[in-house]
Amino acid sequence: MIGNEKIKKILYGGDYNPEQWPEEVWEEDMRLLKLAHVDIVTLNVFNWAMLQPGEETYDFSKLDKIMDLVRQNGLKVFMATSTGAYPAWMARKYPDILRTPNNGIRRKFGRRHVFCPNSPTYHKYAAALVEKLAERYAKYDNIVAWHICNEYGGACYCENCEKAFRKWLQKKYGTIEELNRVWNLPFWSHTMYDWEDVVVPSLLTEEFESDGIRTTFQGISLDYARFNSDSLLACYNMEKQILKRYMPQISVTTNIMGMIKATDYQKWSKDMDFVAWDNYPNAEDDAAEVAMRHDLMRGLKQGKSFALAEQTPSVNNWNPVCRLKRPGIMRLWSYQAVAHGADTVMFFQMRRSIGACEKFHGAFIDHVGNEDTRVFREVKALGEELENRVKGLTLGARTHADIAIVFDWDNWWAAEYSAGPSRLIKYCQEVKQYYKALFSGHYLVDLISVEDELSDYKLVIAPLLYMCKEGYDEKLREYVRQGGTFLSTYFSGYVEDHDLVVTGGYPGRLKDILGIWVEEIDALPSEEENSFIYKGRTYPAQIACDLMHLRGAGELAHYESDFYAGMPVITEHIFGKGKAYYVGTRSSEAFYLAFISDIAKELQITPVINAPEGIEATVRENENGNFLFLLNHTQDTVVVPVEQAGKDLLTGKEYSKGDDVVLNRADVVILQR
Amino acid sequence: MIGNEKIKKILYGGDYNPEQWPEEVWEEDMRLLKLAHVDIVTLNVFNWAMLQPGEETYDFSKLDKIMDLVRQNGLKVFMATSTGAYPAWMARKYPDILRTPNNGIRRKFGRRHVFCPNSPTYHKYAAALVEKLAERYAKYDNIVAWHICNEYGGACYCENCEKAFRKWLQKKYGTIEELNRVWNLPFWSHTMYDWEDVVVPSLLTEEFESDGIRTTFQGISLDYARFNSDSLLACYNMEKQILKRYMPQISVTTNIMGMIKATDYQKWSKDMDFVAWDNYPNAEDDAAEVAMRHDLMRGLKQGKSFALAEQTPSVNNWNPVCRLKRPGIMRLWSYQAVAHGADTVMFFQMRRSIGACEKFHGAFIDHVGNEDTRVFREVKALGEELENRVKGLTLGARTHADIAIVFDWDNWWAAEYSAGPSRLIKYCQEVKQYYKALFSGHYLVDLISVEDELSDYKLVIAPLLYMCKEGYDEKLREYVRQGGTFLSTYFSGYVEDHDLVVTGGYPGRLKDILGIWVEEIDALPSEEENSFIYKGRTYPAQIACDLMHLRGAGELAHYESDFYAGMPVITEHIFGKGKAYYVGTRSSEAFYLAFISDIAKELQITPVINAPEGIEATVRENENGNFLFLLNHTQDTVVVPVEQAGKDLLTGKEYSKGDDVVLNRADVVILQR
Amino acid sequence: MIGNEKIKKILYGGDYNPEQWPEEVWEEDMRLLKLAHVDIVTLNVFNWAMLQPGEETYDFSKLDKIMDLVRQNGLKVFMATSTGAYPAWMARKYPDILRTPNNGIRRKFGRRHVFCPNSPTYHKYAAALVEKLAERYAKYDNIVAWHICNEYGGACYCENCEKAFRKWLQKKYGTIEELNRVWNLPFWSHTMYDWEDVVVPSLLTEEFESDGIRTTFQGISLDYARFNSDSLLACYNMEKQILKRYMPQISVTTNIMGMIKATDYQKWSKDMDFVAWDNYPNAEDDAAEVAMRHDLMRGLKQGKSFALAEQTPSVNNWNPVCRLKRPGIMRLWSYQAVAHGADTVMFFQMRRSIGACEKFHGAFIDHVGNEDTRVFREVKALGEELENRVKGLTLGARTHADIAIVFDWDNWWAAEYSAGPSRLIKYCQEVKQYYKALFSGHYLVDLISVEDELSDYKLVIAPLLYMCKEGYDEKLREYVRQGGTFLSTYFSGYVEDHDLVVTGGYPGRLKDILGIWVEEIDALPSEEENSFIYKGRTYPAQIACDLMHLRGAGELAHYESDFYAGMPVITEHIFGKGKAYYVGTRSSEAFYLAFISDIAKELQITPVINAPEGIEATVRENENGNFLFLLNHTQDTVVVPVEQAGKDLLTGKEYSKGDDVVLNRADVVILQR
Repeated sequence: MIGNEKIKKILYGGDYNPEQWPEEVWEEDMRLLKLAHVDIVTLNVFNWAMLQPGEETYDFSKLDKIMDLVRQNGLKVFMATSTGAYPAWMARKYPDILRTPNNGIRRKFGRRHVFCPNSPTYHKYAAALVEKLAERYAKYDNIVAWHICNEYGGACYCENCEKAFRKWLQKKYGTIEELNRVWNLPFWSHTMYDWEDVVVPSLLTEEFESDGIRTTFQGISLDYARFNSDSLLACYNMEKQILKRYMPQISVTTNIMGMIKATDYQKWSKDMDFVAWDNYPNAEDDAAEVAMRHDLMRGLKQGKSFALAEQTPSVNNWNPVCRLKRPGIMRLWSYQAVAHGADTVMFFQMRRSIGACEKFHGAFIDHVGNEDTRVFREVKALGEELENRVKGLTLGARTHADIAIVFDWDNWWAAEYSAGPSRLIKYCQEVKQYYKALFSGHYLVDLISVEDELSDYKLVIAPLLYMCKEGYDEKLREYVRQGGTFLSTYFSGYVEDHDLVVTGGYPGRLKDILGIWVEEIDALPSEEENSFIYKGRTYPAQIACDLMHLRGAGELAHYESDFYAGMPVITEHIFGKGKAYYVGTRSSEAFYLAFISDIAKELQITPVINAPEGIEATVRENENGNFLFLLNHTQDTVVVPVEQAGKDLLTGKEYSKGDDVVLNRADVVILQR
Repeated sequence: MIGNEKIKKILYGGDYNPEQWPEEVWEEDMRLLKLAHVDIVTLNVFNWAMLQPGEETYDFSKLDKIMDLVRQNGLKVFMATSTGAYPAWMARKYPDILRTPNNGIRRKFGRRHVFCPNSPTYHKYAAALVEKLAERYAKYDNIVAWHICNEYGGACYCENCEKAFRKWLQKKYGTIEELNRVWNLPFWSHTMYDWEDVVVPSLLTEEFESDGIRTTFQGISLDYARFNSDSLLACYNMEKQILKRYMPQISVTTNIMGMIKATDYQKWSKDMDFVAWDNYPNAEDDAAEVAMRHDLMRGLKQGKSFALAEQTPSVNNWNPVCRLKRPGIMRLWSYQAVAHGADTVMFFQMRRSIGACEKFHGAFIDHVGNEDTRVFREVKALGEELENRVKGLTLGARTHADIAIVFDWDNWWAAEYSAGPSRLIKYCQEVKQYYKALFSGHYLVDLISVEDELSDYKLVIAPLLYMCKEGYDEKLREYVRQGGTFLSTYFSGYVEDHDLVVTGGYPGRLKDILGIWVEEIDALPSEEENSFIYKGRTYPAQIACDLMHLRGAGELAHYESDFYAGMPVITEHIFGKGKAYYVGTRSSEAFYLAFISDIAKELQITPVINAPEGIEATVRENENGNFLFLLNHTQDTVVVPVEQAGKDLLTGKEYSKGDDVVLNRADVVILQR
Repeated sequence: MIGNEKIKKILYGGDYNPEQWPEEVWEEDMRLLKLAHVDIVTLNVFNWAMLQPGEETYDFSKLDKIMDLVRQNGLKVFMATSTGAYPAWMARKYPDILRTPNNGIRRKFGRRHVFCPNSPTYHKYAAALVEKLAERYAKYDNIVAWHICNEYGGACYCENCEKAFRKWLQKKYGTIEELNRVWNLPFWSHTMYDWEDVVVPSLLTEEFESDGIRTTFQGISLDYARFNSDSLLACYNMEKQILKRYMPQISVTTNIMGMIKATDYQKWSKDMDFVAWDNYPNAEDDAAEVAMRHDLMRGLKQGKSFALAEQTPSVNNWNPVCRLKRPGIMRLWSYQAVAHGADTVMFFQMRRSIGACEKFHGAFIDHVGNEDTRVFREVKALGEELENRVKGLTLGARTHADIAIVFDWDNWWAAEYSAGPSRLIKYCQEVKQYYKALFSGHYLVDLISVEDELSDYKLVIAPLLYMCKEGYDEKLREYVRQGGTFLSTYFSGYVEDHDLVVTGGYPGRLKDILGIWVEEIDALPSEEENSFIYKGRTYPAQIACDLMHLRGAGELAHYESDFYAGMPVITEHIFGKGKAYYVGTRSSEAFYLAFISDIAKELQITPVINAPEGIEATVRENENGNFLFLLNHTQDTVVVPVEQAGKDLLTGKEYSKGDDVVLNRADVVILQR
């Protein structure tokens, strides 16, 4: 799909489920989709039961009809494999396919996305189905990419998973002695003498619930998180290999979901031909939060453009309170995706179901069944605009950021499993604090993994780098030594890959780079705070306060109160040709903005624009030029001065240097320069 | 009991459990009950283990003694069957009798009301016991009615229920294709090919917990709610048939509980000879809430009087904080029941237990064991008053209301299973808003089912008629066409009987009657609101706001803010000879009162009295006259002018037209006119 | 240990886990422990898996090395038996060892302290291990005491427990008829005919969750609480008997935990040679709360000194927010333990682990691995001070209190299982209200069991004596008759040993002593209160209000509002040569202080000192003199006048009568007089 030379414009469309409707509705669907300028549909997401009515029988007749219908109507297809929900008869005959949650009670048939990833039955029948699909539909050249399964996630704790976990461990650690070492099993008499001693960590074993799932053996739970992510990925790869056997050239992917804890997408993305993701912000998410997820998704493929695979045209059905997307917001958020690297604008769903839990989820075609709705008018206008104005101009365009934030699933898992210093420490929350400051300051930023290159960036920020994996300290050391600037925070450098503390003082192997020694960490309840003064202004110190000693670094601020008043909290360390900053506490967005702006100034990193908060600005570049995206997330009209001449793709209006761009509420401008 | 010609007065008494006490206490009980003017006791509610010590053995010796004792003492009996709690040995030998909650883990012996309604063992042994009871006690002519089991409720999810559910579905839907259609099973690949594919919906399948039980397949969960209610009802009918075989003339019923979600009492009441219910308000319930439940209970039998089967003389034991009923409140609430149609005033319990969980539940005879208590003095005084003042005068009296509120269990289940638009939408809460307005305005009201006749009413209000069942739109259409006035609200008319959306625009088949089209529905969090102006006053619009278009109706008010400011929110539609009103949002009680008062005025519906809030007024009529009940629920003395001459049953005082009735806190007046 | 003539000073040290570390670290440990003046280590707490690698194999080689190492380094040993956590292989082979929680789902291997106390496997292999340990290490004369298992607690609900419970009941009650009587089983048809009918009470049977675990059969749940405590105690005694067989003279104990509901320590303490306890205050606990637990622990052995077996040097790891102990607090709290009777100051742990859930729990030796930390400096200074200043002077000293508070596990269980009058009634909370008043008033107090002698006390306070066990009323009656003063509260005297109400009026068998009759009890929600005036000041009446009649007692205060305004709430009754006071509600600490101070004055009980709140004062006496402990828990400097000359053990400073002791924040003074 992405990178497919058949694609000449931003693809527009989304999930289409005609199998839920009588055939007489299909022709009307075609009329309405055309009216809305739809050019792609995602098909066959949940058809397993229809395609395989029994163990030995398959029935592709209805899918054939659908495929022919959409091809005849000139629609491209994002072709799913239907393996996200198995048939009822399969669950009844082969209970091993049913997932077992962490309470140890095996499920029965129901819901979706609840297969056991290590079920032999699942692997056998999913493979058989995909084989048949590949064979049958390989010839449809309107299929632009394959979409494996759907929104992989969750975890299983059954006996098949237990067996597979033992094998995974054996492969990873070789000997039981090494397992005892990395999990620190002599603690609490857990020493194991046989691989069979290993049980899956769950609420029956090491884990318990208290503000989420806690564990008494972090190493075990952490490895299970890795194993489970790998198990789901193995399901994906099982299908991918079959598809590639039949269609070596076709793009294959799955629709992922942004910041989802269960699945290490940085590992997954290596096996995905392009990134496709479903953007469903929660009611409380702001524009920065969504932007961050787009940047994370873009980062999975080192900046390559991605597919926005799903979003709602109007309303989600699963929120406790389902607010409508206000007029213009669907368009604004669609362009936000494009501004961050999307080459498609796709939705769930084309026609609203009449039964079961998604019947009140928004759609192009509402229950009223015609085009005379606010939502249809909005999606039609956007379809028209994308087709006639944006066309294919931004396809493949890339964003060049000088600042990177390190994001790492292992850190997410490990930092939040930790017993102490504080359950208020939330990995994504910490990352978001830094992201939001950069977003407010209109800086471009990449979210990168610990495997990504650092040398392209002037500033690398690694919040809560609790786990500094084997070799990563050396990578950072080299980066700074060669002139890079590094910023890290409290609760960093504590452990190596297995959550074993690096002795000799915190922050472990980062000590020399940062030029500090953290002796203790004091946790503050949410209603209390310390403070520090940075450049004359007082900022809060919250949640966790490092009690820190300088070991080469210089102090930029110190605590103002409590028994550690006067101890450094913000430091700066010249190391090689570069510098390393350290923020020994959680502070406010205002501090992060002030502090990082100072660093950026020193590093000659300039913001994209100079504009008030609530205006989002990004830049993408390709062979068609440089595109400045301006999006107004506020409720007001805002004026942004143009620093470089250009033409707005959407209106055709030309702006000279010094002109004002006037953005009303929810307005979007794409200046081609 | 009710309608039994042997009954000449309001029966007074309640649950009596002498089997928990040594026999030497019984004579003292008799003395005290007589002192309190008790004339009826409910016996044998929890004696199964005593009556059937083993599989083959029965022992009625103690029950015989009790029966003889109360007969000798001139007491009538409301005779229970003891099937609400099975013996321990039965649970041990036949685990199929044990209920399985929605987590899939079968219970062990304990508590009560926890039999599986589809257990063969339960049916076999309950039938055997009832047969023996019927045979043995048929001859006791002081038994005025039989009381089957006790407070049926809850749900089971075991394999026997699963099998029975499949049969129930097969009978209802005939073919698996029809099942696939009504449950919309093509969604999420749920298509079934065999009845064996059906599993009970539970936390192991489609359901999950999040502000109560949610489901991903509303159709399945809804049918299970119906099935479960039917299963419990089948247990009741199994016993009833046996009793009727032995005593064709005797009244048979069971004690129900007001607004209980698990049991569709409108369906149940058809099999109950009279309605008997247990009134246990929660700490936070006000007088209107209790009144509403009385009216719902009265409506089950189309206005026939009912039995107040249980209430506490002084204190419940199960509340987190068990407040005492203040002096006079027990009497006030007893008369409230009578005011709404009760022909009995009965209590749980006569003597307070000394062990287990109800030992701190109130009783006529407290642990101190004598008559020198506040509570005994109050119950004695009430018993005396009922016997000497009220006598049988109000028996069988009926209330004639011009206003009906439609209440429907299917709507309760379906509206609250819905995923979207808002979990803040609560069926009973919505009904209560309307009821409270009518209560405050001193209007008489009936709570009716969708099967009840409409033509007797001038105004029919159907709040949240989310599910408009087959034919009900036609019934409403005809009613309005013939001159009736109908009022409905947001989230009405969406689905048919199986929770499948009626396409073509909301509110589905009610569109033409109401003269509107609802395009979208916006959900508001509890801390936000919109507003509208009605007759010069501003009222809130909360929880859900319809985005509505007039299709024949006229606008009475529109939204004041947000992007749908100016769109209609309250409408009026002339249809045939009648009118249909629509309230497109949740508003305040003040609005409902103002709005409905205007409608009432137009329809010449007059309030019972003109009095301040907190004074409750109802009217009942029979061959003895017309009885105006006045109850003071406030803490103050209130004066109510008499509009029609009459004599107070309780004091004998005569009032002429224009006189003032002075009601002190908790006072009751019953004017016979 | 305690009372061991080899002990000449306050022992200092704690848990040491060298088996988690490579041997090369051990020598450094020895250097650092010596530096910190450590003289005792607790060893072998969690080594079962190491010591018994398989069913037939044992391996003591590493433990031998450790034992030799510490002996060579002159360290004493508190020798644990490692039975708190079984090996993984054992759980795999013998699942009966795994605990089954109250949801009925058996655990799998994981965590610790999760053996089934009635598991044959556990008993067999724990016995075998202890036998081998006893045999092998009996000869080590640096072992000063044995430490069985670790922190016994929790409960199991498996089939082995069920069988054992039946036997326990059979032994206790003899006949099934008696069981039916004491559990009041005729209620709800629970009558049993066979011991096999008994099932363990759990969430599958009588219990449910609602603000903690509730039950419908208090008698059953109460007996299970007793049985479970006994089952755990039987595990302890099984090990103890083996140890005593090998070492008849050695002291044997287990580390208990203060106020832990599951384990009736008053019963346990009879089998413990001395009391050893782990002091881990929660974040919200104040000094009074900790003091109360120390006094409870001291009371277990009728005032004998005890071992402080564990506390953290700096930070717990399991709190949601893990605050550091502020500088000086570790020392202050260590001396608080000594002030209340501790003869040891011991910690968990000597060296911080690097993996699993306790790696962020404080230790003498932190992850940095050296002595240059705040925490090490503090523990070293304290070690030095104890060795050089306090030495053995306070060993064995006793506290003589005139006031006793009755604390009783059965009351804790029973009062909180009660359904009604209010779940806001919390046993420990009520006890603590009284304790805090006495603490604020600087009175010495003992916490005693219902088996302890009363005659030594001038005042006995029994808050919430809900259950007045067989004979205890007579003991109290005799005490008061002979001149003692007794104070009790609302919700006292209701039930006998089996939670069966004593009929004839509340407070049951205490009525004559207190001279009152409580007719009803009104429960108040937490946001409401009544009030009363005592000696001119108004105090609140909260949670529960007795509606009480005088039956010989005199009224000291009455309610000011509600329908029971004017009824007595505080009473005084002259009975024999003594007096009985009654407080019919929950009031404020200010009231308790005022009221008890008046009583104390009358009884000529004097406070230890006259000082502001926040200064703690205790007195201990032995053959070396009388020691006045003064501890400053405030943040300020406080001056306390010396009423009796003495010398401060810690500074050597001499004080004459009338001198001022100046205590800075966290300061401690121990005046030897």
